Amino acid sequence: MNDVMNGMKQSFRDYQPKHFLWEVSEDGRVGTIRLNRPERKNPLTFDSYAEMRDLFRDLVYASDIRAIVLTGAGGNFSSGGDVFEIIEPLTAMPMPQLLAFTRMTGDLVKAMKKCPQPIIASVDGICAGAGAILAMASDMRLATPEAKTAFLFTRVGLAGADMGACGILPRIIGQGRAAELLFTGRSMNAREGEAWGFFNAIHPADVLETEAKKLAHSLADGPWFAHTMTKTMLNQEWAMGLDEMIESEAQAQAICMAAKDFRRAFEAFAEKRKPIFEGD
Amino acid sequence: MNDVMNGMKQSFRDYQPKHFLWEVSEDGRVGTIRLNRPERKNPLTFDSYAEMRDLFRDLVYASDIRAIVLTGAGGNFSSGGDVFEIIEPLTAMPMPQLLAFTRMTGDLVKAMKKCPQPIIASVDGICAGAGAILAMASDMRLATPEAKTAFLFTRVGLAGADMGACGILPRIIGQGRAAELLFTGRSMNAREGEAWGFFNAIHPADVLETEAKKLAHSLADGPWFAHTMTKTMLNQEWAMGLDEMIESEAQAQAICMAAKDFRRAFEAFAEKRKPIFEGD
Amino acid sequence: MNDVMNGMKQSFRDYQPKHFLWEVSEDGRVGTIRLNRPERKNPLTFDSYAEMRDLFRDLVYASDIRAIVLTGAGGNFSSGGDVFEIIEPLTAMPMPQLLAFTRMTGDLVKAMKKCPQPIIASVDGICAGAGAILAMASDMRLATPEAKTAFLFTRVGLAGADMGACGILPRIIGQGRAAELLFTGRSMNAREGEAWGFFNAIHPADVLETEAKKLAHSLADGPWFAHTMTKTMLNQEWAMGLDEMIESEAQAQAICMAAKDFRRAFEAFAEKRKPIFEGD
Repeated sequence: MNDVMNGMKQSFRDYQPKHFLWEVSEDGRVGTIRLNRPERKNPLTFDSYAEMRDLFRDLVYASDIRAIVLTGAGGNFSSGGDVFEIIEPLTAMPMPQLLAFTRMTGDLVKAMKKCPQPIIASVDGICAGAGAILAMASDMRLATPEAKTAFLFTRVGLAGADMGACGILPRIIGQGRAAELLFTGRSMNAREGEAWGFFNAIHPADVLETEAKKLAHSLADGPWFAHTMTKTMLNQEWAMGLDEMIESEAQAQAICMAAKDFRRAFEAFAEKRKPIFEGD
Repeated sequence: MNDVMNGMKQSFRDYQPKHFLWEVSEDGRVGTIRLNRPERKNPLTFDSYAEMRDLFRDLVYASDIRAIVLTGAGGNFSSGGDVFEIIEPLTAMPMPQLLAFTRMTGDLVKAMKKCPQPIIASVDGICAGAGAILAMASDMRLATPEAKTAFLFTRVGLAGADMGACGILPRIIGQGRAAELLFTGRSMNAREGEAWGFFNAIHPADVLETEAKKLAHSLADGPWFAHTMTKTMLNQEWAMGLDEMIESEAQAQAICMAAKDFRRAFEAFAEKRKPIFEGD
Repeated sequence: MNDVMNGMKQSFRDYQPKHFLWEVSEDGRVGTIRLNRPERKNPLTFDSYAEMRDLFRDLVYASDIRAIVLTGAGGNFSSGGDVFEIIEPLTAMPMPQLLAFTRMTGDLVKAMKKCPQPIIASVDGICAGAGAILAMASDMRLATPEAKTAFLFTRVGLAGADMGACGILPRIIGQGRAAELLFTGRSMNAREGEAWGFFNAIHPADVLETEAKKLAHSLADGPWFAHTMTKTMLNQEWAMGLDEMIESEAQAQAICMAAKDFRRAFEAFAEKRKPIFEGD
């Protein structure tokens, strides 16, 4: 029935993207997106933006993947839009094409926010420009002490208003700190990132990805249907009044209480064993 | 006149709830709600939810109480919804009843936000599930170093979207930290709670309640009509644009300037004495 | 053309206010507003409120000024509304005049938010009442270790709901900390201010203003048209949903990509030199 409704509910085990790496854990539950042009610090290109946007959109129909890790190859997260592959062509485009581009990059953030799987950014080294946006748009963020996060749009003559940063970043680190990072383009170091609530935790580089995957698996093995509702509501209530938030959650939680996983959790508790969630 | 409008303006000195303790300070100004099933770490039940909701609703008409302290007996705040008294029955309910339940718990948060008295949560020990929500929905929060606050809905198979948490918690501690607590259900310790802005201060267990009451009395002895406006506007402006916030406060503050307490404060200042506020 | 549209595009080099000092940097790009009644810790009066409101409104049409520093004379920022020049007359005013006053002060905050130049508050010593609001309404804030910031409206019998504080302050330092400062009126010290994200950095008193001007000049020498868009969007998206934020920024950034400064930045990067921005 759910398959019929989804139309294209599908496995992502054999998905093969062209512009980044995609790895699925042995149990099929955790997918890792790895930006993979380490010699250039994993810049984004027109193609990789679009392909990631399409993947996150398709993950709505996944029958297997329950959590995502987003990371980069070779000790860096991402250097953002490539100067010669993206910025140079943009400087010569007419307005309709410029808007098509900024909407495409915005659509990537929308797709990340709307896919049901929690996304954990695993950030080492350079995390700049659109790379910083991808970390910001993830649901949780882990980093190494060497992570350098810069919303550096101002350094290429642009506004900090990129892919939602002027709205989203202030909700994560506060309006004053976000203003500084977006106006100056300066790098936020890992210590600041943790103290300000951008990073959820800092881990040494040699265990960062293990920790990110551990967190992803703990969510994938948990009540993952309920997690999709947590993610939906964290994004859905962004601009609601208090009454509307509370009514929305009354409905959202009632849906989760009607799902069988709630009963499974109670029974496991009563029998003092670990629950096995099935997402229905 | 005010009595006529309120219809039922009333004293709460002799109020006797059935499912928690209610204590009123000698001067009649500060009411303390104490969850009181210490042997079970003060769980909530269908009855205590409903009775607290009704109390907070009735406090709109109070002629005496000006500030509330919310706490628990026996070294814990609250363990939240009782597993056998609440969760088990819920797992067998049809949808309309589930929604009636989630709306009732949501109505408790709405009632806390809408009663005019500032609410100070005094948190020691376990503060979990709906207990964590009660702390979150208070206006200020004090805790001991031993306080353990967990939005653990995920551990019973549910979403973090409970009683407004996906909307309210991010505004207190930031979107990234709230996401982590709501997705993982992990416990936030007192040090984190203070560093993240969830707790306003940490006090040793033997003075916590004294400090909470001191704060409550300082508000009750202050310009308490103006405090009710501060509370109203802190909640009212949740989802307004900047212009609307500023116009709303122009109106709200003009109301307070027309109240006699404003004149009383000025006269006391000019005469170098402490003002006595009367709330009109 | 831009001049025609603006109607009154103008230089502020020779502007001479009556109720505060106005200084323009040698290059004409940075304007400094200095509250200047040091013997009274720079209180605000009916006249200085109105004159500052008018200046910020006129700065929309500036042909020269690209960033603003807001500070006070004699080791204090501002003590806020003067008790005898403002508060006493207010206690005797009829409602329409009270509302006219609260709207005028609110209009000052609106004008600060709507002038295109980033505003940097440089805060030493006392920063209280409406003075604290002026710091809050600035885009970034630097302070000395001696800065004492108090939203002390409650101490004169009023609500914390003044000039937008109940809506704006929670977005800077979080809902719980804002509630405490607004309910109690207590002073936030510099260390708290930095840890909570109210202050962007702390500097010793003898270099504070130099640092504030350095930051202002770095913005004024940067892509200042793009900065005006960053400021606009940081304020514009206050109460938008995620989708609306992202579409708004797609449009805002496309505008910046169509401006010549974007091309100038790229060319400078390609030629490994510092870009010179012209704001068109």
